[in-house]
Amino acid sequence: MKFGIVIFPSKKIQDFANSMRRRYDPHYALIPPHVTLKSSFEATEEEIKEIANKLETIARNFKPINIQVTKIGSFKPVNNVIYLKVESPEELEKLHNELNATFDGGNQEYNFVPHITIGQRMSDDEHSDVYGSLRMTKVHYEDTADRIHLLYQLDNGSWTVYETFRLGKE
Amino acid sequence: MKFGIVIFPSKKIQDFANSMRRRYDPHYALIPPHVTLKSSFEATEEEIKEIANKLETIARNFKPINIQVTKIGSFKPVNNVIYLKVESPEELEKLHNELNATFDGGNQEYNFVPHITIGQRMSDDEHSDVYGSLRMTKVHYEDTADRIHLLYQLDNGSWTVYETFRLGKE
Repeated sequence: MKFGIVIFPSKKIQDFANSMRRRYDPHYALIPPHVTLKSSFEATEEEIKEIANKLETIARNFKPINIQVTKIGSFKPVNNVIYLKVESPEELEKLHNELNATFDGGNQEYNFVPHITIGQRMSDDEHSDVYGSLRMTKVHYEDTADRIHLLYQLDNGSWTVYETFRLGKE
Repeated sequence: MKFGIVIFPSKKIQDFANSMRRRYDPHYALIPPHVTLKSSFEATEEEIKEIANKLETIARNFKPINIQVTKIGSFKPVNNVIYLKVESPEELEKLHNELNATFDGGNQEYNFVPHITIGQRMSDDEHSDVYGSLRMTKVHYEDTADRIHLLYQLDNGSWTVYETFRLGKE
């Protein structure tokens, strides 16, 4: 089974992201808007209980993290992905690094740029049209990420939450 | 905001349910296959933290619950919903009752019949065709429900998990 670890931002941010995802992101129906902390990795249903226990310990050692969504960006030329940029203190990167050091098998191809994808799988032309029209959009949201979510993927490509872990829980 | 409380069954059961939902359930893309414990109720983002704390206490007082998915049923003539029947010990009904007694505002119109919806919003003719072809399907899955999930609904109708609670956690 494929697992992943994400943050779901507040409803307001998710609704805003979805207003663009519904047009530009083929994953729109497969998963709600999210910040990926660890991209998909393989584990069995037996292994996942141990993974959940480790995650609980890690989550407990972090405090809730303030995030800000500040603008619309693009990963071009690396790929034609358009995203909401998530500014965050160092803690978010620390959390990302600890998760990726603890659990093998994720493909950490890129530097960690916290973001919420709003468009992907676009041709160059489509990307440049869409990004051109979105890039000047004024965006400003603040949120406190106080939970992380462990998800698994179903055969149809959609994701179900296995368990959530509160950050900094006593 | 609208909230709800559900159990997500094992991946195997979800994949099986989705193989039918993709054709017969317009909610297919809005939420993974689930057993509803408390149907949608209104609460604010401020109230939800208190709800989550109450839920944690309730979940702790229950043990993981064995469930069996045993056949395909229909709620007709009440409505044209086709579902996977979930057999379960008394505990599931106790959990359902406690959740509905604790949190106001759910519309408890029906007796609790634990189920996973696989088809809905059908005309009478469509229902009778589909149910006629599915009702003899042999179904047998067993699962242990060891977590419940608190969800909220986004503006587009889809559901995001707010938090999960393990049953019987020490």
